[in-house]
Formats: sequence, C-alpha cells, structure tokens
Amino acid sequence: MGYNQLNTPNRTIMTPGPVEVDPRVLRAMSTPILGQFDPAFTKLMNEVMEMQRAVFQTNNHWAFPIDGTSRGGNEALLASIIEPGDKVFVPIFGRFGHLLVEICERYGAEVHSIQCPWGEVFDPQVVIEEVKKVSPKIVAIVHGETSTGRVQPLAEIGKACREQDVLLVVDAVASIGGVDVKTDEWFIDGIIGGTQKCLSVPSGMAPITFNERIEKIILERKKVEAGIATETDQNYKRSRLAIASNYFDLGMLMDYWSPRRLNHHTEATSMIYALHEGLRLVLEEGLDHRFVRHKLHEKALVAGIEAMGLNLFGDAHHKLPCVTCIEIPSGVDGELVRSMLLEEFSIEIASSFGPLHGKIWRVGTMGYSCRKENVLAVLGALEAVLIRHHINVNRGEALQAALDVYAAEGKKTVTL
Amino acid sequence: MGYNQLNTPNRTIMTPGPVEVDPRVLRAMSTPILGQFDPAFTKLMNEVMEMQRAVFQTNNHWAFPIDGTSRGGNEALLASIIEPGDKVFVPIFGRFGHLLVEICERYGAEVHSIQCPWGEVFDPQVVIEEVKKVSPKIVAIVHGETSTGRVQPLAEIGKACREQDVLLVVDAVASIGGVDVKTDEWFIDGIIGGTQKCLSVPSGMAPITFNERIEKIILERKKVEAGIATETDQNYKRSRLAIASNYFDLGMLMDYWSPRRLNHHTEATSMIYALHEGLRLVLEEGLDHRFVRHKLHEKALVAGIEAMGLNLFGDAHHKLPCVTCIEIPSGVDGELVRSMLLEEFSIEIASSFGPLHGKIWRVGTMGYSCRKENVLAVLGALEAVLIRHHINVNRGEALQAALDVYAAEGKKTVTL
Repeated sequence: MGYNQLNTPNRTIMTPGPVEVDPRVLRAMSTPILGQFDPAFTKLMNEVMEMQRAVFQTNNHWAFPIDGTSRGGNEALLASIIEPGDKVFVPIFGRFGHLLVEICERYGAEVHSIQCPWGEVFDPQVVIEEVKKVSPKIVAIVHGETSTGRVQPLAEIGKACREQDVLLVVDAVASIGGVDVKTDEWFIDGIIGGTQKCLSVPSGMAPITFNERIEKIILERKKVEAGIATETDQNYKRSRLAIASNYFDLGMLMDYWSPRRLNHHTEATSMIYALHEGLRLVLEEGLDHRFVRHKLHEKALVAGIEAMGLNLFGDAHHKLPCVTCIEIPSGVDGELVRSMLLEEFSIEIASSFGPLHGKIWRVGTMGYSCRKENVLAVLGALEAVLIRHHINVNRGEALQAALDVYAAEGKKTVTL
Repeated sequence: MGYNQLNTPNRTIMTPGPVEVDPRVLRAMSTPILGQFDPAFTKLMNEVMEMQRAVFQTNNHWAFPIDGTSRGGNEALLASIIEPGDKVFVPIFGRFGHLLVEICERYGAEVHSIQCPWGEVFDPQVVIEEVKKVSPKIVAIVHGETSTGRVQPLAEIGKACREQDVLLVVDAVASIGGVDVKTDEWFIDGIIGGTQKCLSVPSGMAPITFNERIEKIILERKKVEAGIATETDQNYKRSRLAIASNYFDLGMLMDYWSPRRLNHHTEATSMIYALHEGLRLVLEEGLDHRFVRHKLHEKALVAGIEAMGLNLFGDAHHKLPCVTCIEIPSGVDGELVRSMLLEEFSIEIASSFGPLHGKIWRVGTMGYSCRKENVLAVLGALEAVLIRHHINVNRGEALQAALDVYAAEGKKTVTL
C-alpha cells in the first residue's frame, strides 16, 4: 500500500484550538510506554492529579483527565450527576452553551435555558434570578466561549448557586491555563478543562475536577461492572440510578484514579505523558505570569487589528483574552482570506459557527501559540492578504502598533 | 512545584496490552500539530480510513477511530444501534463478554446471555441455536478474549446471524493486527479494534468499522446538535430515537469523517499520527506475514514454558496466539513473581481477573512486543525468578526449546 510517512507542513496555528503543542510536550509523547499499573506509571498519574489541582486552583481530591476530547469531559461530568427528570439550567451565550443543553437532554434532564445574543455574556444577576425562579438541581454554564470570544463572570453566580444548594458545572475548556479560573473561590462544583487550547497539549484528553458534593451523588450511583466486581461491589446498595454510560462512569473512574486502581480502561499512556509535561509547563511559568502573558499578546494583537482599521466583534468588557474576534469587512469572502493565509503564509485562523458564520474571523492566542513572533506573523500576513483582496486597510500600521505594545512592556515583556 | 520531567524506566512489556509501542509510532507522535480542518490533516484522516479498511479486511465505507480507549469504541457502536428494549444476545467466555453485557444494559437493552467456563469458547452451533431461540436484534461477542487467552471462531456464527437478519457486533480489540479478522467474509456488521495491543500504538483510540446495515439504523436516529445544525439538520425526520450519548453519536461522527467535516469534536491529532503510522507498519509487514510472525513467537514461548515444566491454561484448540496463559504453580504467590520480574528484570507480565485471579499469569506477544529478544527475555527471567522462589523447574530447558523453535524456522524466521 502506498501510504507515505508523515510529512506535515509547518503551521503557525492561531485558531482557538487546537493550537501549537509545546515542543517539550511533543518530545514527552515520544517516550516509550509503561504498563498502566507499573508503579512508575501510577506515580505519574498521581502527579497529574496534583498538578491538575493546582491549575484548577482547587483543593478537591478528585482531579484527573477523561480519556476523550473536551466534550468527553463535559459528558462524563454531566452524565454522572444527571438522573432522568433532573432539572438543569443552562444560560447560553454561544455554541458551547447549546452543547451543554444537548448533552443534558440526551441524559434525560429537563433543561431550562436562556439565551443572550452571541458576542455578549449574562449579567450575573439575571442568571441568579433565573436560578431562584427555576430552582434547578444543576446549573451548567460555559466560562470561556470560543465561538464568540467572550468570558462569563462566574464568582457571583457560583456564590448564589451554593447558597441555593444548586450544583454549578462549568465548561472551562477554552480558559483553563490561559485565563484565571478559580474553582474553589467561585464555588464551582465540577469543571472541565481543555488540553488543546491554553495548555498546548494535543486534543484527546479532558482534565476535570469535582468536589464532595458531586462525589456524594456519584457514590450513590456507584456500580462496578461484572467481570471485575468484587463481592463487596456486587452487594453495594445504590440509593440512586446507576450512571447511564459505562465509559463515562465517574464512579469507576474514581476507583481507577485511586489506590484501588480498578481496571476500568487502559489509560492513554502517551497522552498522560503529554498532559504531565503540559501541566508542568504551566506551573513552571506560574499561573499569574501565564495569565499576564496571555493578556500582553492579546493587547498587541488587538492594537494591531485596530490600527489596521478592522473592527473587533463583541462586548469588549467581557472579551476572552485568548480569543480575538474580528468582523469580516463587508465585501470580503472570509474563507478566501483564510485559505490564502494558510496556503501562502502557512498560518491558520478560524471561522465561526451558527449566527456568526461568515461574519467574523477568530484568532486564538493560546498557550504555546501565544507568543510574539506568532502575533506579528498573523498581523503582517492578514494585512497583506487583505490588501491582495483590495480591502482598504491602514498600510503598515498594524505591526507598528503591536511592536509599540511590546516595546512599552520593555524589560517586563514576557515573550515565552 | 517540584515535578520532574519524565524519566521512565525502560520496560520489556509482555502483557496483553498496553504493549511496547513501535519506535516509528513514538516518533510520529512528536510531529507538530496540524489544525483539524487543515487539508494536510484531513488527508491523513482519509488515509487512516483507507488503511483501517485494509486491516479489518472490509469494503465498508465507514472505518474510523473513536477518540477514547477500546471500550469507548465498544460503547460508541453499541450505543448507536441499541434502542431501549432491544434484545441483545451476548455469549460470555471471559471478562470482556461481561463488559459487553454491561454496556448494552446501560443503554437499555434487554440482554440475554450464556456463559461457558473461562478458558473455553463456544461451539458455534450452541451460539447459533441460541440465536434462533432468542431472536435478538443484535449479537455482541468478543473475538479474542484477553482475560482467558481464547479466540472464538466467528465464521459460522456470522453466517447464521446474517441469515437470521441479526446484527453481529464483534469486540476484536485484542486480535486486530495480530490474528486473522475477516470482517466481511465472516459477515460481521460492526467491529471494534484496539490500538494498544497488536497494533502497537498507545491506548486512547479505538478503530471501528461498520456496514450499511448499521449505517441505516444510525441514519434513522440522526441528530445534529444545536449550535452547528443547519436548517436541513433541524428539519431532519428521525424515524427512531436519537442516540443517547452525544460523544459516541456515530451519526455525527460520520459527518465528521466525511467531506462535510461536521465540527463534532477536535480530533486527537497526535493519536491520529500514531494510528496512521501503526496502520502503515501493519500493511508494510503484510497481514499474513504479521499473523505468521505472531504464531511463530507464540510457538517459541509455548515451547519454552512447557520445557520449563509449567502448564498452559485453557482449551489448546482455541488459544489466542497473542496471549499465553500459564497456570501459577501451587504454592507460588503469582504477584510476588510478577513484582520480581518487574523490579529485577524490568519485564512486565500480567495477572488475570475474576475466577482466574491468582490462578494464571498472562504473557502477551503482541505487535512490536512480539519479537525474539522479548520472548527469550521473559523465558529466561521467569525461570530465574521461579528458581529464586524455590520452584522445581527444568533448569536451562526453556531457552533451549525456544531457540530450537527459532532455529527450525531457519532462514524463514521473521524476527521483526
């Protein structure tokens, strides 16, 4: 069969994920395999748990990755706590709010949702009022919405949910590792992060963490599968319905990620290596330092875009620092511009979904992709491509504006 | 934080998975990332589909990996075809038969199962008679059962299922790439392979394939999630219930693995690189050549074990060539032997589950781990450890017997 070995082009990836993987993470993945119960491997698993806690800013015991892409993490958490008929409230401000609704409905929840226009977020008071009115078991909400480039403030919502004894589940796939996510301080009960965005690890794993409030529900639903169940497991009295998915059953995953090491699945060894190195990179850089770096490169990118004469999309007060949405100038085919960026400059930026399809470009500044040379490359290339498409831009201004931002940072500049 | 970089020991992994990953696969994984819709990446996705078809010996159009471990593949296929109340028949001859029951039950199936003692397989006629009696919608069965080291003949069962218009779903996680799996010739409708066994790719992805009979059911259940659904999607008339899981919804995955490239999830880039290289290695070696190699090293291993004076476990006529089960001699703590193999010789072999726990060791000869130096290493080390535990073995015989097998192959020897 005539299949060639991998011979991939070298891309500058400035999308909201998947983004460039840190070279240290790439190297970690080529480490030879260990058996899943090899003490050398379970030690790494424990370190991943500890590092995840630090990155999620939590004291939760349970912090481990799900072997699946980010939505696998969402599904694992929601499937493990939703029982048919449960009331879930989902405030939707972009595509991934719809996904949360979708997952909840598939697991039999009675979903109540509210929507705001894409590009905005909710006034926390509006959400809180609705929580009081609906009185759901669970509020599921997105933190950083990549489809619109917005970030929803969660502190007040979290406090109100805890006061109402409502569980708060948060999709922080796009924000974790790039934007402040205070799991405990914001009273988040369960939360999902993404690997392929600000952590700069490949897609395929979803770090999650949850507290005792969620653990309690899971233990009440616990079921260990036949074939490996001990007598104790078989006699276990569930006070709630078993979880509907086997793969996403957090009860068995807790037993896997604990000294019992229940053989639920074969952990994705190379992805654990990758996540281990990715988390190490985040903690070596320091969370605060990392958030500052993401904001600096956002500032340079935004300055460049505005200097070029393009308009930013969305509510500026709630912009997600790691995603910048640009209105596609009228008369421009956004996809042609993206193709030319990819084909001529080997730079990838993103389009968008639903109501924003064809209306905005999205530029990510996430993780390892979030660095000076990439910001400058995308600005320079975008200007050239727009000129090539006969768009009236302020020639030569974008890079100067971005360089000004970097120069103003002077010695303080974090260039990674 | 004081986390060190990966510094893993070098292991000889002779378990039934995860096994050593081929060095070419390890290198492929350190390739920089591509965006998921980059034409350079979608080309690789298409090549993975083509190569999967060849490895599964099928002309099915649908052949792609699920982003999850092997049981994720089982769950995706079963969840997508089982509707609550459906009758599923599962013949159980080891742990993974129980897993199939478990998954089917969680998705609301009415499961009928029969069991045979661990270490045996079913006479196909027994299964066929039961199919006729039960008249299920689906028969779900394991092909290579790693927990007992047996392989279930499927040709007659497949033919009978097709004649009865019953769907046959097969778990070939342990056999694919190491033992003959004739998807089309055996009339298998849906089948799941494993990466971390005979394909010598890390765990975390599950290649599957299915035919038009299964596709038809999936299309009748099709639902594209809000947020990305087009008007056509929204107006789509389902004649059956939507699939209960979003993550494992093969309808959306089919749209992702087709020119539509529906943005269901972010494909696990580095794992696709790994699978691409792993499949390439299988096809370069050639399926028949590969099956012969697995049998050769099995023969050498078995000769060594028997020469040492140990007993093999299970029905010899239905032994899975890539897993050899050894009875633990009486008076021996099997776990102490395994620990000493790991700690002194850096060699890993496996224990077993359920009724076989503490009674057998399992030695895998799978994929890249299945090579002469590894077989000789495990025989030599096992003999030394048993002598160290004061077990009466035929000293010095095992390696001579294995070397005799290799010598007899002479010039024909496939040593990889």
